[in-house]
Amino acid sequence: MNFISVSKNEGIATITLQRGKVNAINEVVVAELDECLSDLEIDPEINSIILTGQGKFFSFGFDIPEFLSFSKDDFAQFLTQFTNLYTRVFLFPKPIIAALNGHTMAGGCMLASACDWKIMVSGKSKIALNEIGFGSSVLAGSVEMLGYCAGWKNAEKVLFSGSMYMAEEALTLGMIDQVSTEEELTSEAEAKARELGKKDATAFNSIKKLLREPVAERMVNREKASIQEVCAIWYSPKTRENLQQIKIK
Amino acid sequence: MNFISVSKNEGIATITLQRGKVNAINEVVVAELDECLSDLEIDPEINSIILTGQGKFFSFGFDIPEFLSFSKDDFAQFLTQFTNLYTRVFLFPKPIIAALNGHTMAGGCMLASACDWKIMVSGKSKIALNEIGFGSSVLAGSVEMLGYCAGWKNAEKVLFSGSMYMAEEALTLGMIDQVSTEEELTSEAEAKARELGKKDATAFNSIKKLLREPVAERMVNREKASIQEVCAIWYSPKTRENLQQIKIK
Amino acid sequence: MNFISVSKNEGIATITLQRGKVNAINEVVVAELDECLSDLEIDPEINSIILTGQGKFFSFGFDIPEFLSFSKDDFAQFLTQFTNLYTRVFLFPKPIIAALNGHTMAGGCMLASACDWKIMVSGKSKIALNEIGFGSSVLAGSVEMLGYCAGWKNAEKVLFSGSMYMAEEALTLGMIDQVSTEEELTSEAEAKARELGKKDATAFNSIKKLLREPVAERMVNREKASIQEVCAIWYSPKTRENLQQIKIK
Repeated sequence: MNFISVSKNEGIATITLQRGKVNAINEVVVAELDECLSDLEIDPEINSIILTGQGKFFSFGFDIPEFLSFSKDDFAQFLTQFTNLYTRVFLFPKPIIAALNGHTMAGGCMLASACDWKIMVSGKSKIALNEIGFGSSVLAGSVEMLGYCAGWKNAEKVLFSGSMYMAEEALTLGMIDQVSTEEELTSEAEAKARELGKKDATAFNSIKKLLREPVAERMVNREKASIQEVCAIWYSPKTRENLQQIKIK
Repeated sequence: MNFISVSKNEGIATITLQRGKVNAINEVVVAELDECLSDLEIDPEINSIILTGQGKFFSFGFDIPEFLSFSKDDFAQFLTQFTNLYTRVFLFPKPIIAALNGHTMAGGCMLASACDWKIMVSGKSKIALNEIGFGSSVLAGSVEMLGYCAGWKNAEKVLFSGSMYMAEEALTLGMIDQVSTEEELTSEAEAKARELGKKDATAFNSIKKLLREPVAERMVNREKASIQEVCAIWYSPKTRENLQQIKIK
Repeated sequence: MNFISVSKNEGIATITLQRGKVNAINEVVVAELDECLSDLEIDPEINSIILTGQGKFFSFGFDIPEFLSFSKDDFAQFLTQFTNLYTRVFLFPKPIIAALNGHTMAGGCMLASACDWKIMVSGKSKIALNEIGFGSSVLAGSVEMLGYCAGWKNAEKVLFSGSMYMAEEALTLGMIDQVSTEEELTSEAEAKARELGKKDATAFNSIKKLLREPVAERMVNREKASIQEVCAIWYSPKTRENLQQIKIK
């Protein structure tokens, strides 16, 4: 693993995104997360998972400068892998807690949305589905997950504005479930992971499927067309120009 | 145009309902709104739309005294046109802001529900889906839009009670999105229209469809049966008697 | 009727669960409620219904000790009858008010969820879908009804935690609609029953179907598989052991 690390302690696996300063998501990050989930799914010692990031970002979202060199087909292929990943997280049989240590943008916010519980640090960090701001659409599955968590009218507010929200605002909107201080984020994420991890695993998984499978079905049904539409927009001259302005330090 | 006026200023088109004292909706109002939207949809100068009313009403709803002279088939025909109109507004590619200047009743409330953002004046004005109060049902699409905006339990409260709500209550219930003073309604509606109108149009339209198309599909699927049911109730002796009591000044 | 009593007064029928100290639900309770609803549905004197319990419990939920002697097929048969009952309540043409006089657990909470309005006493009484706590899943229809009333994220909180909530917390979560004192529960339930009972019956029923039929369709479509899954879990050695610890005084 190059861009994620995994530590295990008392039944909890903590996955930390660590790719540069902003944990930008590319094909390798998605592949590593997927492989890691495959291990943890069958690891009998692991009852629950924490997903977090290193540094001032949970994740910036997609590594836009890298994707600018991709052909449209290759980018569509990446989006398929990415949407498969968040759908897998959304239905994962073991509880996954998102510990949002810093800025959580676009694709990073989509990945967080798929988790069972989202704790975000208060302070300077922001969370956003800011795609509209650079002339992009979003993925159908991310819309379904946001509507599921936040309700549809709040989903509209978040998506139409593309605003960056503080943790407290994000809590009110239903984008996250809990606000924490920077100091207590780890312990609060671990407390939640322990709480959900000690539930009967069969019962938890069954109830999670009852709640989420109808949503996941809609996600899967709509994703292919949505990926085509996102690609069409990304490769349009106007949006491409916006994307070329985006720098990742 | 006899019953609506349209003004255009800095990318914003304002449509004002102006039909008598209460802006009651009849076949001509629906046809004029539809024609007007067809123009605005392709007008390259227009980025967003405000829908408002003249006087103390946004709209009283259907022009009940006029419809009492209609055959059941003609009334069903009108309901088809009306539901086509609100479905069109619900999916309209450009942002539509409802500036609710006064009372917003029944069919008027349904039309407002279809807009992207609803600002209502505080004070004496009321908003209601008050059909149950005169023994009528509502249209399936209006139920879907209300559930989408307000959540299902709030939709039940609104529809089962038929209550008239002040702007502040309507905001809490999710029937509207913002409360304004009478003096500031226009400027606040324009601010919102500018805000949404300056978003990338392709991205806005794509995101709006991702959010609303599944709802619109359910609306369309259910509307035909719903229109038949509303007609059956309107032409039942008991409800007909109620309708005959309703006066429009 | 052995385990329920029915009284009628001024258009309101009050059904009271009275089976032992905790009003545990078994096959006979379900059959009696079903028969009672068949009578009340066609009783021209009855406009609305109150469903309440006797003693310190609205209902403990299923009579687990009794069901431990059932074969898996017989238990599945009971679950079919029970889910048919709550689906019937959910769509019942006359308004049904749940007057939650005391603890409202598991199957008791599912039955309450199906009603049009739920008033719960404040004080010591708790409400819960606590199945996860004894290693059981829940029924698909109960998940749909909870999501409809409380929103999906609140439904997750309630179901993943299995927590026991006070009336005030349950109100915030959307599990119930109103909190009452013990002294005023009856009069407030009667006031709500009168309010909904005096609405035009045809309009009420039509609007209720517009709101709830899509939910009921999903309930029915998913229930058979869900019953099989609940049975598989109940008859697994681990959950069976938990169930054998449960005592009903």
